[in-house]
Amino acid sequence: MIHASARVIVLSGGVGGARLVDGLHRHLPAGDLAALVNTGDDFLHLGLHVSPDVDTVIYTLAGLANPATGWGRRDESWHFMEVLAQLGGPTWFRLGDRDLAMHAERSRRLVAGEPLSAVTLDLAARLGVSTAVIPMTDEAVRTRIQTADGSLDFQDYFVRLRAEPRIERITFEGIVGARPAGAALEAIASPLLEAILVGPSNPYLSIDPILSVPGLRNAMRLRGVPIVAVCPLIGGQAVKGPTAKIMRELGLECSPQAIAEHYSGLIDGLVIDEADRDWAELCGVPACVTRTLMDTDAARLRLAGEVLAFAGTL
Amino acid sequence: MIHASARVIVLSGGVGGARLVDGLHRHLPAGDLAALVNTGDDFLHLGLHVSPDVDTVIYTLAGLANPATGWGRRDESWHFMEVLAQLGGPTWFRLGDRDLAMHAERSRRLVAGEPLSAVTLDLAARLGVSTAVIPMTDEAVRTRIQTADGSLDFQDYFVRLRAEPRIERITFEGIVGARPAGAALEAIASPLLEAILVGPSNPYLSIDPILSVPGLRNAMRLRGVPIVAVCPLIGGQAVKGPTAKIMRELGLECSPQAIAEHYSGLIDGLVIDEADRDWAELCGVPACVTRTLMDTDAARLRLAGEVLAFAGTL
Repeated sequence: MIHASARVIVLSGGVGGARLVDGLHRHLPAGDLAALVNTGDDFLHLGLHVSPDVDTVIYTLAGLANPATGWGRRDESWHFMEVLAQLGGPTWFRLGDRDLAMHAERSRRLVAGEPLSAVTLDLAARLGVSTAVIPMTDEAVRTRIQTADGSLDFQDYFVRLRAEPRIERITFEGIVGARPAGAALEAIASPLLEAILVGPSNPYLSIDPILSVPGLRNAMRLRGVPIVAVCPLIGGQAVKGPTAKIMRELGLECSPQAIAEHYSGLIDGLVIDEADRDWAELCGVPACVTRTLMDTDAARLRLAGEVLAFAGTL
Repeated sequence: MIHASARVIVLSGGVGGARLVDGLHRHLPAGDLAALVNTGDDFLHLGLHVSPDVDTVIYTLAGLANPATGWGRRDESWHFMEVLAQLGGPTWFRLGDRDLAMHAERSRRLVAGEPLSAVTLDLAARLGVSTAVIPMTDEAVRTRIQTADGSLDFQDYFVRLRAEPRIERITFEGIVGARPAGAALEAIASPLLEAILVGPSNPYLSIDPILSVPGLRNAMRLRGVPIVAVCPLIGGQAVKGPTAKIMRELGLECSPQAIAEHYSGLIDGLVIDEADRDWAELCGVPACVTRTLMDTDAARLRLAGEVLAFAGTL
């Protein structure tokens, strides 16, 4: 159980968070890191259980991620999708031939009664990933987007409608009955734990589901180690995805201050980009100013080191 | 509803039957043929509904079948299976990347509440197949193999164990509650119907499930058109598959006579191979002696014509 001896835990959604997870994974000795990943994006598609954020983290760590898309695998083939289109099937969610095996094998094991966390840890290990990739919960939590025109499934909103509808509210269906994955609590209880990090994922869509699993936020807060978030904004914009758009729709200012306020009561420090250095004094918690854009492997690694060093000072 | 104006119905399992279906399909004007196909081999695999015999018939008619294997598609890629193996998933049932789309889209539509027959007719049409491909029933019927060591799922017996266990008995789970697919009854009721044919598929594993769907055998018999079977044996051997082995295990002689006795009360005539001409007088029904090996497209077409001509004499 590598997660029970974690020195660092990082909370992550998809692409932005996954890159910080990868930087930390490269920075730390094998087995020192546990990634706690959002499953609010999970959905059943074509009879298969798809875990988009979990898979992005696993593929990123395994060196299999597609850097151009932020989802799926590189060097992928698309024969399945070609025939699916010919058969009149739904093509708005793209499933590569190799990627499909992940969803099919996950589904098979879930149907056989294994918990999602056990399946995920094992599938990641089989792809050579030494970092524990832990879904936030084994129960089904489904992020739903409330718009003026009604309620949308997350993937409907995010992929099919390209995050275009205006968000009024975000809810997490099933969250009341969800419990933290056992492996998540074990990682938090690790006697070696030194820091908990919140990756630069979308706070509302990707991190909030994790923090909303009953007991998880408290367990992290009570653990007594520094908790540091990396701000997902650079100069008021998200690197990728609709974070800034959603903040505007929710009536928030697109600033590190708003992010710090969102995580208020949880974090002990915030890492912000050089472009936002003027906000450093306004975050209510100590801020570390550095370059946060992870556009190269070297940048991931450097940021990981800086975030850990910053956490060590708190 | 092309099936409601069928002139010929043919009962079929996988490869042998599918070849006769294809010969008839080439011989007859578009829309004149309806294939009534075994679904006792259907099973859930990796969360997907797989219909092996139905797909073999569809792929054969669409010109997509793999002649080397008797299952799956030609010019297929196997990236899904490669990753599935890496993930520790089950690899005994081979699913090609393109073939997978059929199972996924079928599963999606079944979960959405459509009946199997409607989904099947539509998927076949989308692959350009003008012959109605009709599953015997919309309900779940599962062929099970009773051996001295217990009961086996059909695919477990047929694919994973390569039909090696000795058969004691064959049962069709769910058959009591099954009803003939509506499209099947419509085809049988077609005012244009001239003949019902039984393809050279395995009588015990592939044709018996169809004949066991309550009401189907009677509806065919009462329809009053000639019913003709093509013997699946040539010189006491099956062209492909375990028919002869199963007949021996069931204590039967591997002869056209035993096949005729098996279909006794149903058929009005039997088509047997030249190699078996000595059996012609012993079948209890009129026999047509011809070359039954469908090793080329021309042979399929010729046999189809001969079978129809023979039925026309009865």
